[in-house]
Amino acid sequence: MPSEHIVSSFDTDLKEISRRVVEMGGQAEQLVADSVQSLVKRDTELAQKVIVLDGPIDLLQREIEEKSVLTIARRQPLAGDLREIVAAMRVANDLERIGDLAKNTSKRVLALTGEFHPQKLVRGVEHMSSMVLEQLKEVLDAYASREDARAIEVWKRDGEIDVLYTSLFRELLTYMMEDPRNISLCTHLLFCAKNIERIGDHATNIAETVHYLATGQLLTEERPKQDTTSLTTVPFPS
Amino acid sequence: MPSEHIVSSFDTDLKEISRRVVEMGGQAEQLVADSVQSLVKRDTELAQKVIVLDGPIDLLQREIEEKSVLTIARRQPLAGDLREIVAAMRVANDLERIGDLAKNTSKRVLALTGEFHPQKLVRGVEHMSSMVLEQLKEVLDAYASREDARAIEVWKRDGEIDVLYTSLFRELLTYMMEDPRNISLCTHLLFCAKNIERIGDHATNIAETVHYLATGQLLTEERPKQDTTSLTTVPFPS
Repeated sequence: MPSEHIVSSFDTDLKEISRRVVEMGGQAEQLVADSVQSLVKRDTELAQKVIVLDGPIDLLQREIEEKSVLTIARRQPLAGDLREIVAAMRVANDLERIGDLAKNTSKRVLALTGEFHPQKLVRGVEHMSSMVLEQLKEVLDAYASREDARAIEVWKRDGEIDVLYTSLFRELLTYMMEDPRNISLCTHLLFCAKNIERIGDHATNIAETVHYLATGQLLTEERPKQDTTSLTTVPFPS
Repeated sequence: MPSEHIVSSFDTDLKEISRRVVEMGGQAEQLVADSVQSLVKRDTELAQKVIVLDGPIDLLQREIEEKSVLTIARRQPLAGDLREIVAAMRVANDLERIGDLAKNTSKRVLALTGEFHPQKLVRGVEHMSSMVLEQLKEVLDAYASREDARAIEVWKRDGEIDVLYTSLFRELLTYMMEDPRNISLCTHLLFCAKNIERIGDHATNIAETVHYLATGQLLTEERPKQDTTSLTTVPFPS
């Protein structure tokens, strides 16, 4: 029965692609957690590890892309199955970018050794990170279990992270104005906070992909975007 | 002759995909140029325009992805043709991100109205932008004409942009330390400079894709990465 044979090979391909995406998700999640830890604890050894471990994630993304394209070409999947593969490629793409952002945060840790480093400045970044990590974990679980409702919850909560980021941005600018010795550290923390906020955006992208996967529909509502830092300035205290 | 019919439909699909990528490239290039102009001239009207015009670029990316996937599924292309389509998807992906970065720069222009705004602070960003725009133009021409040598030139020059970015980063930190009234502006300029440096990275990605398209090989050498700003701090003058 050649047709059954084809169908079952296709299922094997599909499961293998999906399995690799989930594996990649686990690696990306760990990398984000480690990058934040390296920043909070000023752990340069952990930071170095994060920088190195971004490589395998990039590699996995290319493998998933390659395997996906070959599967589409060989198996000519129809709508539903095609959606599975396109979704896998999109999620892998977001995870690759998440890995890059974690790596960038850890690179900054290496820049900050020996800098004036009041612990309170880092606390806001840590708090924001824990929210983003929770979002990432949730959306990866939603992908693995194809749970649309869970993905939508993640999607809705992105606005809260943006609010937090905007307030952190103002806070860090204020610290810089209060004491110029904070400028170097706070600049790097601003970029770290931006990295983390963007990781949140990628989690939201993944939520949109899970929704598309589960329903075949695009999330057409406007995204609950509340990051207004590009519109934020802090007046110099007179 | 059904097989010729299939081949020619496939060619039509392929040309259409490639045409849309080139069109998208033109739009992204214009958006980057306009975003820099909006920053340098503090032109909020132009900035608003950039923010709106990022939308059609995102849409084009989705269309290219959709058309590519359907073409792979329907036509079952072999190696060379498959490479064409994968390359188109990758380039579209980079162009979409370039559009986002241009939009982010223009959003910051809106934040800076009324801010203390010494023209000299912006000049470094302007200079760096002109180099990046040149890179982007070159690599898009290389894609349109499938010229590997031209793509490799772009790829090699990315290091120069990174050097420029690192020096600009230090310069902006120094301005912040000299006069706290510069902090708000310089912070946004740092993010703008980072946006532009990342646009350069995406141009380098596209160069790698053109090389893969022209030769079937990956550029295996280590990328000439010289952005060390994540490792850069400026000591507070004592």
